[in-house]
Amino acid sequence: MNEKTQEKQHWIVYPIGSKPKWGLAVLLGIQQYLTMFGATVLIPFIVGGAMKLPPDQLALMISTIFFTSGICTLIQQSPLGNRLPVIQGGTFSFLGPTFAIIGMVAAKKLTGPEPMWQIQIQEVAGAIMIASVFEIVLGYTGIMGQVRKLISPITIGPTIAMIGLALFSIGAPWMASNWIISLITLVALILYSQVFSQKSRAFMLFPVLLSIITGWLAALIGTATGMISPDSPAYLKTDLIASAAWFSFRPMLPFKWGFPNLASTTLWAGAFGMLAGYLASMIESIGDYYACARISEAPVPTSRMISRGLGAEGLGCFIAGVLQTCNGTTTYSENIGSIGLTRVASRRVVRCGAAVMLIIPIVGKFGAILATLPQPVVGAMFVGLFGMIASVGLSNLQIVNLNNSRNLFIIGLSFFAGLTVPYHFNPLLSASAVPINWSAAGTFVKVIGDILQAILTTGMAVTGITALILDNILPGATRAERGLEVWEKEASEEAWQEAESQWAAMQEGEMRPV
Amino acid sequence: MNEKTQEKQHWIVYPIGSKPKWGLAVLLGIQQYLTMFGATVLIPFIVGGAMKLPPDQLALMISTIFFTSGICTLIQQSPLGNRLPVIQGGTFSFLGPTFAIIGMVAAKKLTGPEPMWQIQIQEVAGAIMIASVFEIVLGYTGIMGQVRKLISPITIGPTIAMIGLALFSIGAPWMASNWIISLITLVALILYSQVFSQKSRAFMLFPVLLSIITGWLAALIGTATGMISPDSPAYLKTDLIASAAWFSFRPMLPFKWGFPNLASTTLWAGAFGMLAGYLASMIESIGDYYACARISEAPVPTSRMISRGLGAEGLGCFIAGVLQTCNGTTTYSENIGSIGLTRVASRRVVRCGAAVMLIIPIVGKFGAILATLPQPVVGAMFVGLFGMIASVGLSNLQIVNLNNSRNLFIIGLSFFAGLTVPYHFNPLLSASAVPINWSAAGTFVKVIGDILQAILTTGMAVTGITALILDNILPGATRAERGLEVWEKEASEEAWQEAESQWAAMQEGEMRPV
Repeated sequence: MNEKTQEKQHWIVYPIGSKPKWGLAVLLGIQQYLTMFGATVLIPFIVGGAMKLPPDQLALMISTIFFTSGICTLIQQSPLGNRLPVIQGGTFSFLGPTFAIIGMVAAKKLTGPEPMWQIQIQEVAGAIMIASVFEIVLGYTGIMGQVRKLISPITIGPTIAMIGLALFSIGAPWMASNWIISLITLVALILYSQVFSQKSRAFMLFPVLLSIITGWLAALIGTATGMISPDSPAYLKTDLIASAAWFSFRPMLPFKWGFPNLASTTLWAGAFGMLAGYLASMIESIGDYYACARISEAPVPTSRMISRGLGAEGLGCFIAGVLQTCNGTTTYSENIGSIGLTRVASRRVVRCGAAVMLIIPIVGKFGAILATLPQPVVGAMFVGLFGMIASVGLSNLQIVNLNNSRNLFIIGLSFFAGLTVPYHFNPLLSASAVPINWSAAGTFVKVIGDILQAILTTGMAVTGITALILDNILPGATRAERGLEVWEKEASEEAWQEAESQWAAMQEGEMRPV
Repeated sequence: MNEKTQEKQHWIVYPIGSKPKWGLAVLLGIQQYLTMFGATVLIPFIVGGAMKLPPDQLALMISTIFFTSGICTLIQQSPLGNRLPVIQGGTFSFLGPTFAIIGMVAAKKLTGPEPMWQIQIQEVAGAIMIASVFEIVLGYTGIMGQVRKLISPITIGPTIAMIGLALFSIGAPWMASNWIISLITLVALILYSQVFSQKSRAFMLFPVLLSIITGWLAALIGTATGMISPDSPAYLKTDLIASAAWFSFRPMLPFKWGFPNLASTTLWAGAFGMLAGYLASMIESIGDYYACARISEAPVPTSRMISRGLGAEGLGCFIAGVLQTCNGTTTYSENIGSIGLTRVASRRVVRCGAAVMLIIPIVGKFGAILATLPQPVVGAMFVGLFGMIASVGLSNLQIVNLNNSRNLFIIGLSFFAGLTVPYHFNPLLSASAVPINWSAAGTFVKVIGDILQAILTTGMAVTGITALILDNILPGATRAERGLEVWEKEASEEAWQEAESQWAAMQEGEMRPV
C-alpha cells in the first residue's frame, strides 16, 4: 500500500531566493497583493462602520491600512523578520476586542470638541500600540519560538489545512452574491492555472491576476449593459474612481487622528482585552510560517525564524497603532495559496509588491480602481486559494506513518475539533452558537473568558493545540513514525544555509525547471 | 522529503474474514451498534414529531427502525450485498422529501376514520417503497458500479474525509449539552483507546463500549444526586425503562399502520421527490464502502461490490417501506470510525450485532435502557469517531504524488467546496443560507431543484463530484502520480480472492499481530 511513485519533485519555478527580472517581479508582486485586497478592505469597513466614520475618513483609513501593510511586509523581509515570502495585512482576530473598546468609549461622556469616532480611533489604535509590546517581547525573546520543539508534522498538517478550510463560511456565500461572475472567475482560475499554464508562460506565472481581470471584465460588462443592478455586490462602483483624489500623503501621517489620552482607563482595559487577539494572531502566524515554507519548497522554519517573525509582527502592530489603522498586522493566508498556484515564492516579488503598496494609497485613483474588485470575484479566488492551503497542509503527512492508528486518531480528532468547536462558540458561524461571556465575574475572569473565546473560535488554534497536546502525551508511535526524524533534519540552520546558497547560485531572471 | 519510515503496517487485529469466538463477537457486535444508536433514534423523533405521533406509536416506530436495521445489515452481509462490515441504519438524506409528503398529506381533507398521522405514515413509507426500485435497478444492473472506473485516490481521499468532517455541526454542539459528562466520555475514549489499550486486551477491543459506559455512569450519578436537572439532555429518563413492555412482536409486522392507497396522487408525487434522497444516499454509500474497506485494511471495493452494495440498500429501503419505519436504510459512518478505534473489522462481529438488533426491539425493556443514552455521551463519541473517518480518508493520499501542484489543487478545491457549498445552501447549518426552491416553476423543474439541493447540501457529494470531474479532465499528472497504478492492482477480484483466502486461513479466535 505504500509504494511511492514520485515523478515530479518540484512545483515552484521561482524559489524564495530567486531573482526574477525587475519588471516581471513588480507584476508578480501586484498579483500576490491582489489576493489580499478583498479581506483587507473589509476590516476598515467593519470597524469604521461600528464607529460611524464619515465616508472621507473611511477612505483615509482604507488607504492607511494598505500603506501599513506595505511597511509591515518590508519589516518582515528585513533582518528583523523571518524573510519568508509572507505578506502582512490586517487581522480579523482583533475585531472582538476592538468592538469592546468602541463600546466602552461610546458609553463615556465626551467633554472635548472631538467627535466620538475620533476618540474611538485614538483609543483603539492606542490599545493596539500598547498591547503590541506583548507580541514584541514574546517574539524577540524567543519564548514563542520554543514551541517549535513540540511541533511535529502530525500537528502541523491538520493545522495548516484548517487555516484554509476554516474560511468555508466566506467562500460559496461570497460567490453566491453573483453566481455568473463568480463561476466565470473560478472556471478561469481552473483553466488558466491547470490547462493553459501547460503551454503558456504568461498563464503559468499569472493565473491569479488573469482570472481576477477576467472576472472584473465580466462584472464591467454586466455593469455597463445594465444586466447587473446597482445594488448588487457584483456592480462596479465606477463613480468611486471619479471622486477619488489623484494624490494624498495623509495615509503616511502618524497620529493623524490625534494622540490618545494615556490617562484613559478604557484605553488600558482595552489594551488588556487586546491580548486575546494577539494570542490568536500569533498561533495563526506560526501555522502560516510553516505553510509558507512548505508551499515554497523551503526547509522547515527554525525556532529563530518563528521568533523573529512574531517579533516583526509585533513591531508592525506598533506601527499600525501609530498610523491608526485601528487594526494590527498578521501574516496573510491568501498569498500563501497564491504561491502554490503561481509557482512563484521569490522574496524579490514580495518586496516589489510591498513597494507598490507604499505607492498605491498615495495615488488615490489607483487605489479606487482596486477598491472596485467585486465580491463574487473575491469569493471565487478564496475557493481556489484556501483549498490550496488545505492540501499543502495535508502534504506534510507524507512523512508520517498513516498506518498507525494512534497517528490517525490524533490527526482526525484535532481536525474535527477545529471545525466543530468554533461552530459551537462563534455566533457568526451558527445562529445557535453559545459564545463564552464571563463579563459578570470581574475583569480578570472576563479576560480569561475572552482569551478562551478568541482561541475556541479560531479553527486552526483549536486544531493546533489539540494535536500538539495529544501528539506530545499519547504513546503508541516512535519518533520516526511521527515523522520527526525527517522533519528535524529539515528544520535546521544548516538546511536553510544550504537552501540559501542554492538559491544564491541562480542567475538573475533564471527559472527553475519543474 | 519523501523518505518513508513505515514501521507499523497494520492496525486491525480482527480483519474482515476473521472469526472471533462467539461470546466475544456478540459483545463486539453490540459495541459496533452502540455508536449508531444516537443518530438512529433521532430520526423517528424528528419524523414522528412532524407527524404529531402519539407517544406509544413513536416508541413502536423506534423499535421498528432498529429491527429494520438488523435485517438490512444481514442482507448486506449475504451474497445479495457487498459483504463489507458495514452497518445499515436510517438516513438523514430522506428527511427533506419526507417533510414534503407530510406537508402534502396534511393539506388534504381526510374522509376515512384513520387519524392524519396514520395516513402520513402510509404515504411516506409507501413513497419510500415505490422509489426503492430506483436504487435496486441502478444498483443490481451495475450502472452505478461503473463510476468506479473514474474514481482515483485523489477523489476518494477528500470524499471520505468529508464524510467525517461534514458532521461538524453535531459534535461540539451536542457535547455542549453537558460539558462535564461529554468531556468525561471523550477523555475516557482517548485514554482507553490510546493509553490503556497498550497494556490491556479489554481496553484494546472495547474502548468505545467502555467509554460509553463511563459516560453513562457519570450521567447516572449526576441524575441520581440531582446535579443534573430533569430538563437537561444529560438526564437519564429512567422512567422510560419502567413503562416499557417486556415483549412486543409488533415491530416485525408488515404494514402495521395500514396499506397505502396506491391511487393517491400525493403518494406518487412523494415517490418522485424521494429520488433526490436516494441519489444523495447512494453517493454517500459509495464513499462509505471505500472508507470501510480502507479502515478494515481490505483491498479497494470492486465495481461488482459497489453494485451489489447499492442493490442491497435498495432492497433494504423496500423492506423499510413495508415495515413502515418512514425512513430508508443506508450505510452508517459511525461504525466505520469505530472499526478504526476498536481494530475489529470482522464480518462475524457485524452479523452478531445485527442479530442482537433483531432481538432488542422485541425485548422492550432492553431497548428502553439503550434509549436513555444521553446526548452529551453521543456527542463525545461523534468527535472521536468522525475524526477517525476523516484521517482514514486522508491516508488514501499516501499513494498520490503530493509534490504535484495539479493534484494539490484538485484535492484542496474539492475539500473546500465540500464545506463551503453546503454552508451556503443548508439552512440547518447557517442562518443566512439560501436553499434552492424552484417549486414555482412546475413539477419537473421542482424535482431537478430538489435533487440539486439534496446534492449541494451533502458535503461529501459536493467534494466527490468536484474531485471526480476535475481529476478526470485536468491534465498535469500521470496515472502513476494520481495513484492509479497502485490502486487498480488493489481493486481487483484477484486482490479480494487473495485477501479472503488469507482471512480464511485464520483460526477460530485468532488475532492478527499488529
